[in-house]
Amino acid sequence: MNEVKNVQVLGVLGGMGPMAGATFASRMVALTPAARDQDHIPLVLCNDPRVPDRSSARLGQGEDPLPAMVAGLRLLERAGATLIAIPCNTAHLWYDQLAAATSLPVLHIVESVRDDLERLGVAGCRVGLMGTAATLQLDLYGEPLRRHGFPVLPTEPEEVRLCAEAIDAVKANDAERGFAPAAACIRRLVARGARAVVLGCTELPLAVPHASRGEFGAVLTDSIDALARTAIRRCHTPMERQA
Amino acid sequence: MNEVKNVQVLGVLGGMGPMAGATFASRMVALTPAARDQDHIPLVLCNDPRVPDRSSARLGQGEDPLPAMVAGLRLLERAGATLIAIPCNTAHLWYDQLAAATSLPVLHIVESVRDDLERLGVAGCRVGLMGTAATLQLDLYGEPLRRHGFPVLPTEPEEVRLCAEAIDAVKANDAERGFAPAAACIRRLVARGARAVVLGCTELPLAVPHASRGEFGAVLTDSIDALARTAIRRCHTPMERQA
Repeated sequence: MNEVKNVQVLGVLGGMGPMAGATFASRMVALTPAARDQDHIPLVLCNDPRVPDRSSARLGQGEDPLPAMVAGLRLLERAGATLIAIPCNTAHLWYDQLAAATSLPVLHIVESVRDDLERLGVAGCRVGLMGTAATLQLDLYGEPLRRHGFPVLPTEPEEVRLCAEAIDAVKANDAERGFAPAAACIRRLVARGARAVVLGCTELPLAVPHASRGEFGAVLTDSIDALARTAIRRCHTPMERQA
Repeated sequence: MNEVKNVQVLGVLGGMGPMAGATFASRMVALTPAARDQDHIPLVLCNDPRVPDRSSARLGQGEDPLPAMVAGLRLLERAGATLIAIPCNTAHLWYDQLAAATSLPVLHIVESVRDDLERLGVAGCRVGLMGTAATLQLDLYGEPLRRHGFPVLPTEPEEVRLCAEAIDAVKANDAERGFAPAAACIRRLVARGARAVVLGCTELPLAVPHASRGEFGAVLTDSIDALARTAIRRCHTPMERQA
């Protein structure tokens, strides 16, 4: 796709879940300053929902998703991608293997969320985490955020349960049913002292509509939007200036 | 992407415009009956917004978009697509050339909209058309709908103007600003006797949110959703049964 020199083509390894992948593509468009079609960023989305479940695999109960994810990277390379984004937090538990499997740069969703917390003016504030059982139990966000000076609340089992309920509702095409458990989890984290809450699974932003996000008394960072903002910034930086 | 036998992989030639392409991918997910990720349809979206403007080209004022569209088809072929959908009505003015350029079956958005009018129970009713200047002036919808027994209202210049205003707002990432001209056009068509109105440019459904569609006293058919419904039906039909 990349016939024009110095134009980035964003390859999106999606499908995990498929609505998160499609929403990421929409948010790439919505968050790009543009007056006409041709101002937008060229993007190829591989939205293959057949990738085995990441959370089950990581917790030792399911098929390894890595071969399917690497096949997706190959497809995006063939399609002319110059930069990869993966709108699935749990997939980032395989980040090192994925980054090693391709010569293309791969954005890291945790770094995007950390940048977003700084953009939102809550650097150094107490953070509550939401995500799949695997990302919470294997501490995908905890260690890097602590290293950057964020006190991170330890996750309680009820929060893992509420997140799973919200995520499953979105994956079953019923995002509205996901709102109540997601909101209950946010309120618990705020009651425990969180000033910011990470919607650290790309299904969670779909359960908590933008219009409702002001009602919790804490800053919410949306891992879909955070990754899109990083991707837009990278695609708008001339390629010769990038390392 | 298509390692599993008898599984369709939908290739989406998007980017025209990019929000329509991304929204089509979202609607494919939303309209598919599913309980988990793995129930959804594998999809590759080529969302390259650099395709030259279709409407200007067709009206003789701009660069030919056909080579860029054919390059997009090649990319989707390499990505393993088995079926092509093009969520851009104006691009269908090149349908014959696009279908001839690939061995893959290419869905036709006008046939999807015609099927949708029948699904909505308005077969044979008076229809008003909305779309780009090129689709309206070159009668993309008029002839095939008349052939299927729909009386089609002739388009008036003010309707072309209102549609263009709504479409340009969506392409400039300001879908809300597109609502007033789109709604004014729908009301004009209804006042002229339309029982159904075709949102016959994939930007128009973005200007007229689903929640507002009941207020016009006519059935609205959404070319994004209509094409997604056809694609889902085709992907759920066993491949050996297809011609």
